[in-house]
Amino acid sequence: MGHKQNIGATMKIYDYPAPNAQKVKIFAHEKDITIEYIQVDLLNHELRTPEMLSKNPMGTVPFLELEDGEIIRESRAIIEYLEGIKDSPNMLGKDPLEKARIHEIDRLAELGLMIELAHYVHNISPFFADKGPQSKEAAEMALNCYKKNLQILEDSITGEEFLIFDRPTVADCTLFSTFTFAESIGVTSQNSFKKIMSWHEKFGKRKSAES
Amino acid sequence: MGHKQNIGATMKIYDYPAPNAQKVKIFAHEKDITIEYIQVDLLNHELRTPEMLSKNPMGTVPFLELEDGEIIRESRAIIEYLEGIKDSPNMLGKDPLEKARIHEIDRLAELGLMIELAHYVHNISPFFADKGPQSKEAAEMALNCYKKNLQILEDSITGEEFLIFDRPTVADCTLFSTFTFAESIGVTSQNSFKKIMSWHEKFGKRKSAES
Repeated sequence: MGHKQNIGATMKIYDYPAPNAQKVKIFAHEKDITIEYIQVDLLNHELRTPEMLSKNPMGTVPFLELEDGEIIRESRAIIEYLEGIKDSPNMLGKDPLEKARIHEIDRLAELGLMIELAHYVHNISPFFADKGPQSKEAAEMALNCYKKNLQILEDSITGEEFLIFDRPTVADCTLFSTFTFAESIGVTSQNSFKKIMSWHEKFGKRKSAES
Repeated sequence: MGHKQNIGATMKIYDYPAPNAQKVKIFAHEKDITIEYIQVDLLNHELRTPEMLSKNPMGTVPFLELEDGEIIRESRAIIEYLEGIKDSPNMLGKDPLEKARIHEIDRLAELGLMIELAHYVHNISPFFADKGPQSKEAAEMALNCYKKNLQILEDSITGEEFLIFDRPTVADCTLFSTFTFAESIGVTSQNSFKKIMSWHEKFGKRKSAES
């Protein structure tokens, strides 16, 4: 690993109820990796304190603090790290073709759905008004893309219980947290897709989905 | 691999001069993997022919066709596949912490820069007018985010010759293709960052950068 591990110490994730943080928590739960979660009062700018900015200058959650103090920011980087330190159950692919298939659907869930929802909310929510000029047109374009990509997702589900293969993968974590986010901002377009909803009901019964 | 390989056949990539396609080509070139590139006349809707849609229903490039006819769509999925079939030179990380560090900066380049540029151009170019309602405010917001993330990138470069470590990684491929894209649409904000420009000049002298 090239850095010191303290035996008995626990990794910490700085956490907030948001899609990328939930994605990481579901992933860690499915892998049965013990992590201490530290809730950050994001709305009251707790990420902007000098102590927090010294840990993560980007001012975002989630970020992972290793036992030796190393910080890993960025949800997908944290997931790569967790898969790297515990390879069972495999959630990123066992061979090149599995890796490719999992990435195809994970990217569709993230770039095609989660990010479109983020653009939608950035353009309508007063909370994001300081990010730049908001526009109703941009919000509408994002929702249009979200709906179009839902159809592509519906046609891409190949698993019986999970999105793909016969086991949970990162794509299930990404999609479940995306729909939690959609519900929280009042977007319901996903409810009219049969395979998507069947998957959502099944995955929602897993312990990890309570993360 | 679970699927048949035809000896002597060559993988094909369906290609067009766009950032995700260039990213994959630079990556394959750095790994010295032989691929046949098939140019697609995207502007004349060649991706919408029945033959093309039977290969890739998403109607996007790049996509990879394996020797046995399997299709891998989505640039990041293709990159995972290529890394999986040829592990040298390693470009996605040799251990969990390397994987995390490479993903951190690759995600910053893609989500923080390339996707913001895409949003910018989607909101100003007549070519994308049918995607949804365009807005100048959305274009301005995207450019604001692009500039803010350039500063974070400038502060994140830790390599001497490459973005990180002492070898090319996927992050170099992503960033180089992002700046090719930026130049093509007339965005020059990146030019005022010293470490970024020094990196760009060095990477631009590599053979792969001609991809």
